[in-house]
Amino acid sequence: MDIATAVQMVAIMAFAMTGVIAISSRGIDLFSACVLGTITALGGGTIRDIILGVPVFWSIDLNYIWAALAASLLAFIGKPLLDRQHLFRLMLYLDGFGAALFAVQASNKVWDLEFGIPAAPVILGVVTAIGGGLIRDVLAGHPTLLMNRDLYAIPVLLGCVLYVLSLAWIPEYRPISGALSIALIFGFRSAVIHWRLSVPHWLMTKPKDDSRA
Amino acid sequence: MDIATAVQMVAIMAFAMTGVIAISSRGIDLFSACVLGTITALGGGTIRDIILGVPVFWSIDLNYIWAALAASLLAFIGKPLLDRQHLFRLMLYLDGFGAALFAVQASNKVWDLEFGIPAAPVILGVVTAIGGGLIRDVLAGHPTLLMNRDLYAIPVLLGCVLYVLSLAWIPEYRPISGALSIALIFGFRSAVIHWRLSVPHWLMTKPKDDSRA
Amino acid sequence: MDIATAVQMVAIMAFAMTGVIAISSRGIDLFSACVLGTITALGGGTIRDIILGVPVFWSIDLNYIWAALAASLLAFIGKPLLDRQHLFRLMLYLDGFGAALFAVQASNKVWDLEFGIPAAPVILGVVTAIGGGLIRDVLAGHPTLLMNRDLYAIPVLLGCVLYVLSLAWIPEYRPISGALSIALIFGFRSAVIHWRLSVPHWLMTKPKDDSRA
Repeated sequence: MDIATAVQMVAIMAFAMTGVIAISSRGIDLFSACVLGTITALGGGTIRDIILGVPVFWSIDLNYIWAALAASLLAFIGKPLLDRQHLFRLMLYLDGFGAALFAVQASNKVWDLEFGIPAAPVILGVVTAIGGGLIRDVLAGHPTLLMNRDLYAIPVLLGCVLYVLSLAWIPEYRPISGALSIALIFGFRSAVIHWRLSVPHWLMTKPKDDSRA
Repeated sequence: MDIATAVQMVAIMAFAMTGVIAISSRGIDLFSACVLGTITALGGGTIRDIILGVPVFWSIDLNYIWAALAASLLAFIGKPLLDRQHLFRLMLYLDGFGAALFAVQASNKVWDLEFGIPAAPVILGVVTAIGGGLIRDVLAGHPTLLMNRDLYAIPVLLGCVLYVLSLAWIPEYRPISGALSIALIFGFRSAVIHWRLSVPHWLMTKPKDDSRA
Repeated sequence: MDIATAVQMVAIMAFAMTGVIAISSRGIDLFSACVLGTITALGGGTIRDIILGVPVFWSIDLNYIWAALAASLLAFIGKPLLDRQHLFRLMLYLDGFGAALFAVQASNKVWDLEFGIPAAPVILGVVTAIGGGLIRDVLAGHPTLLMNRDLYAIPVLLGCVLYVLSLAWIPEYRPISGALSIALIFGFRSAVIHWRLSVPHWLMTKPKDDSRA
């Protein structure tokens, strides 16, 4: 296994583990933990590949499934340990790195397939990063990240836009612009985690005055 | 841009705008508004194309994406204006027209692909009209239209059945029967909006006596 | 219609009827009952076929759709009758048999397509059995089976693992091992229904002490 693959597997595992931890406070069983952790890790890329009309990535390389399942199991067993503040924060950073990595890789894949350029590479980059978490929240009955003020999708969107612009204008620097886009997303996301940033009020609709809203 | 395309774009924009307004009373950010508005507008047709196994329509003509995004942005900014009663009602009528147009177009596309005739053209016609709204409601944590008494899907179903029957029995009148089916759905839906009609009680199961139900 | 097809249709109808009954206590209309019953019956196989990249099974043989629609209609009309304890329990057993049958058939189909062996035949077997119910619950705003302690997916998982192991190690006994796997799932599921078994506590995460959780 080369370094690139190893990095991917670590990112997949971080996705699955934060996925399990995000819903395990409700009291779920081992099976549901594995299902929801794996969906968190692989769901976004699955939607992307279905929309692209190409074979889903985990059917070609089963290591993605094994990594996601093993990480979900690990998170289920090791939950008391992972609940400790500093370990959970480490997981959040790894998860942010995974989102950055998979989003830019996805934009790259969609671009190379010449699918709906330039909008689709950006859209499917974001879908790849957040799709799995959306399905998990819907199946677990949680509010999705679209309805809270966490800054998760917006850094991913900015990074994908930057990367697609670089592919259009300076295609000869692809490796550098890819690395920079990943760094941008990860850096932005790290700042969000570190300073607990959230979407500013002027970027939100005012909820109705109804206090139950 | 010819008239047919212009009409489509207006309908897509109406879908996106009613989509944003339907969920914006909760207090959502600009990004989520654009995501959920675009999903409302393009989600139904995306499910249809995935089930058909053909390239998703917005990957071939990106104008659908730009129109949906622009309309979502417009609805986000212009929300105070759109909240006015008469403007919102105008949007509801445009949305009803969009549902009529896309449902019949979808039935037509599925029929021409000879996919699961006669059931699939009707089913995928309805899916195209209501699928986007269903995904939006699920992601936003709203009750879906399947669980309320609004008459939205039933007019669409009747129009698609009528259109598919006409394709089977009087295929030589396709343009006329298509226009009539669109008019039927739009007329029915307009009556629902104007007189605030809802599903009659005899077409519903009795909820359990449990007062919390 | 041969016996194998007849058995399948009975199973599809049981899926649809338990699907309608599961949500009809809320007060739903005839249209929603048919949509949600049909989705319960056909949704899992649809997701499987989309992930496999093959034509969805109900577009090739429309009898699946007619059976699901007819059963949904029947359940809607006959609800007062089906609410009787012993008839509903009969439906639960038929539903368990359907889950067993469709899961093993799905594993078989995925194996023959040589798609992601050995993980994908197991995963898509489980998806086929529970996917329709998951979509129904999400659209109806119910908690999904992933979040309760009912033993539904775990028997299916065990049966699919057993069947895939037998395909790998003793492929010459395929018909026997298929029948045994179906019997295992159905027997396990029947025991769950009969003795009202649920997931044991040691296989669950402890919910947070927060009483509102």
